[in-house]
Amino acid sequence: MRILGLDPGLATLGYGCIEVQGNTCQVCDFGVITTPADTAVGDRLRSLYNDLHTLIPALQPDWVALERLFFYKMSHTIVVAQARGVILLVLSQLQCPLMEFTPPQVKQALTGYGNAAKIAVQQAVQRELQLPQLPRPDDAADALAIALTAGRYADTINR
Amino acid sequence: MRILGLDPGLATLGYGCIEVQGNTCQVCDFGVITTPADTAVGDRLRSLYNDLHTLIPALQPDWVALERLFFYKMSHTIVVAQARGVILLVLSQLQCPLMEFTPPQVKQALTGYGNAAKIAVQQAVQRELQLPQLPRPDDAADALAIALTAGRYADTINR
Repeated sequence: MRILGLDPGLATLGYGCIEVQGNTCQVCDFGVITTPADTAVGDRLRSLYNDLHTLIPALQPDWVALERLFFYKMSHTIVVAQARGVILLVLSQLQCPLMEFTPPQVKQALTGYGNAAKIAVQQAVQRELQLPQLPRPDDAADALAIALTAGRYADTINR
Repeated sequence: MRILGLDPGLATLGYGCIEVQGNTCQVCDFGVITTPADTAVGDRLRSLYNDLHTLIPALQPDWVALERLFFYKMSHTIVVAQARGVILLVLSQLQCPLMEFTPPQVKQALTGYGNAAKIAVQQAVQRELQLPQLPRPDDAADALAIALTAGRYADTINR
């Protein structure tokens, strides 16, 4: 089963795609989609929209996993929520099944501790996917963490 | 000059379209786009997306006016911001020029008082557009108020 994790953002949207077979997970691809800071928000959202319509059919995920939106700074949350709206739109257009997790669920799944530090989560991602180094940039690492969390549910999904 | 005001929302998106000529404003159309409560958020955003792609080319506005997002309840703000992301995407796709106003700017423009009550704003909309009764539903009235606020800037735009 192939799972694509997405970490929503307007300036940088992280993605991480894994293949889950039984108890093993392998990385397929990870990286970020970026939009230029000096253009209008609508044009940046259109750029995300177009890039997602290229990326998702190319990766052909069976499931897409997204973090539920947590708020820590209001203005930032609104910007991310606007990007998240475009992601949800594209997933609906492409008829991708969706799983959502809260940040504590992701941390708990990967480290056994719902309040784990970012670096501990990234080290767990590196270990689980047997990567030669910590996945970079951070947004791609977050996306892989979300995909791995969804992978834990793969058994449940298959049944 | 034709101006379309939009009041973003997921369950109900208000729209109000006016024609501005010199100092007079006439209503062209107003109403709401609704999405069914019992479907997934992504599917509702897709429904908004499709409806906006029908509505906007049909109304052919020269400008679209949107309220800047104010937060009053976090979970509600995220839902509205996701819908707003889809609106901004569609406006970019259709290359519609955009104006944005804060809620106090809209109240100030219509009543002379930035903290005016909702009903006072609706009465100002009714008066200014010479409507037989208060515009309904509320979301459509809000959209007309935003369009009228943008109308005040029409002179500035034309220059």
